[in-house]
Amino acid sequence: MFKAVIESDKLKETIEAVSSIVDEAKINLAPDGMSVKAVDPANVAMITLNLKSAAFEEFTATEGELGVDLKRLTDILGMAEKAEIVEIELDEESHKLVICMSGLTYKISLLDPASIRKEPKVPQLDLPATIVLSGNDLKRAVKAAEKVSDHMCMGVDGEIFYLEAEGDSDRMRLDITKDQLIGLEPGDARSLFSLDYLSDMVKSAGKANEVTIELGKDFPTMIKFQIADGNGEVNYLLAPRIESD
Amino acid sequence: MFKAVIESDKLKETIEAVSSIVDEAKINLAPDGMSVKAVDPANVAMITLNLKSAAFEEFTATEGELGVDLKRLTDILGMAEKAEIVEIELDEESHKLVICMSGLTYKISLLDPASIRKEPKVPQLDLPATIVLSGNDLKRAVKAAEKVSDHMCMGVDGEIFYLEAEGDSDRMRLDITKDQLIGLEPGDARSLFSLDYLSDMVKSAGKANEVTIELGKDFPTMIKFQIADGNGEVNYLLAPRIESD
Amino acid sequence: MFKAVIESDKLKETIEAVSSIVDEAKINLAPDGMSVKAVDPANVAMITLNLKSAAFEEFTATEGELGVDLKRLTDILGMAEKAEIVEIELDEESHKLVICMSGLTYKISLLDPASIRKEPKVPQLDLPATIVLSGNDLKRAVKAAEKVSDHMCMGVDGEIFYLEAEGDSDRMRLDITKDQLIGLEPGDARSLFSLDYLSDMVKSAGKANEVTIELGKDFPTMIKFQIADGNGEVNYLLAPRIESD
Repeated sequence: MFKAVIESDKLKETIEAVSSIVDEAKINLAPDGMSVKAVDPANVAMITLNLKSAAFEEFTATEGELGVDLKRLTDILGMAEKAEIVEIELDEESHKLVICMSGLTYKISLLDPASIRKEPKVPQLDLPATIVLSGNDLKRAVKAAEKVSDHMCMGVDGEIFYLEAEGDSDRMRLDITKDQLIGLEPGDARSLFSLDYLSDMVKSAGKANEVTIELGKDFPTMIKFQIADGNGEVNYLLAPRIESD
Repeated sequence: MFKAVIESDKLKETIEAVSSIVDEAKINLAPDGMSVKAVDPANVAMITLNLKSAAFEEFTATEGELGVDLKRLTDILGMAEKAEIVEIELDEESHKLVICMSGLTYKISLLDPASIRKEPKVPQLDLPATIVLSGNDLKRAVKAAEKVSDHMCMGVDGEIFYLEAEGDSDRMRLDITKDQLIGLEPGDARSLFSLDYLSDMVKSAGKANEVTIELGKDFPTMIKFQIADGNGEVNYLLAPRIESD
Repeated sequence: MFKAVIESDKLKETIEAVSSIVDEAKINLAPDGMSVKAVDPANVAMITLNLKSAAFEEFTATEGELGVDLKRLTDILGMAEKAEIVEIELDEESHKLVICMSGLTYKISLLDPASIRKEPKVPQLDLPATIVLSGNDLKRAVKAAEKVSDHMCMGVDGEIFYLEAEGDSDRMRLDITKDQLIGLEPGDARSLFSLDYLSDMVKSAGKANEVTIELGKDFPTMIKFQIADGNGEVNYLLAPRIESD
């Protein structure tokens, strides 16, 4: 059983965050909200997302899972105006998802959850450095790095959070000092990441007021931010690349 | 003899409405205005358009016809600012169309009207149901249907005007109740249409405050609206598709 | 030795003006500013550009030259906000160009000036007619001509500056009378030019308040305008095409 009513924007940002990692996802339903855990096909990036029932105008669900084609859903949600109220309901009989918005009703097929890749085990990491910055600043750094390379190093040097990229002939470095950050817990941290993944992630993270990055030395990074006015959380985990030089 | 002065926007919307159906058209001239009748190459859609002399700042014409490449004309009218005054004159000697706007003069070749497809006979239809709605609402329905299918059903059910589309796995239905419509004369009506054509037609119709749709049961539909501040009218006729199920 | 501080917009318009002619350029440095002289690969168009030290917030340079990949530089300057302050410095040791803007540092490789095409000798021309008009008017003329042809004639007829283009079937003529111009020194002038080149040139010239065009009879044209709030000047020279008719 599943029935939910939500502002279109909140649902859109939720779906968008998951779309950065996978095209199809299993959405877990529970009485207190929905959640997703997914790993990308190359096993490089992972997402843990939860959206509490408080994010919804109305939310009723029993334990269950929905197999969703995210592109399809994004396309259909594109019909909703900003802040329009969207109703979603599972039609148990036809096993279709019914999506309503101001007179308009879609009935879309669900995917067999068994056909979707198994949920990953999310590793527990204890990362030495934590950086809190505006999503927009992170987005700018990723964009700046893309001009010279396809991977970017993030690190902490004293009270500076730095981002570096090095191409065949050109280099870029962005220093963000502690006073330009929202928060910094310094630690020994420097790891290299693929810009392809970061670029996808900042599509969602770039809109957040606050993004928390946890970093280690040649270790995965965790990139966390809130969605749906604080009633949901996205947690990306991104594996490092090996730095060769 | 033909000489006319008109606001660029009015001429642009006239040409745009015809462009949805054909690439080349015969424009009929008469002392009281101009008119076009054309059928698309596949014989699925037809347009009847008239633009009264009152739509023009100045209008002088004797009976005659102009063969026009509509894309060419649209391209050249693109040089005119919004609400700029455009002068059009037939140069009888060279048989070219002279188009002037603030210092800029184009002389474009006309097509031989004999080389353009013959004007269709427009059938007289007596359709049971009539729906009047805002062009924008019709446009939204077409856009919503395109997300799941390439054809859309329009029908009337009691006091509801409904639009339905069904794809391989997904369905869409939009109900517009009488109070959301500008007008409704109910009747037994339900027909299926190609979204390709509807999509082209709503480019023009979508800008109109009021669009009148006449519908029957597996019958062609008529889609009517005004252009040039009420001094012109467009009448699209679209053949139905066979509903198979 | 080279170190300069400048508003991003001024540097962007400088680079853009040169990019219309060549992809790589030798920038000449001197204590009083920088300059470029370049000819396009087909020997049809030439640019002479200078940017005085007064255009900069700070400028220190000894005589020298920098080989620059203009597309690369444009791409990186795209990271700067409007009116953001940009610092450029030559790192003599690594022979790289260091570009800084609000925390962000790029280090880009320079090209070997010897590998860039030799600077052209700029011919001294004494052209009979001079037209001064707004950049926007010139841009509109080029856009209008492109609709019918790939070359455009510019000429002076009494107190009228005219621009003409003739395609296979269509013609365009734009007359700009003396009172619509900023200035006119009439003279015997009519020459045909490639719209490809003019179209590139008006990307920069189109933004200038005043553009000066010097014209002759089947002779090259000079198109001059200021950049960087009057602290720099661009001078394009464009060879004519032969008018065949």
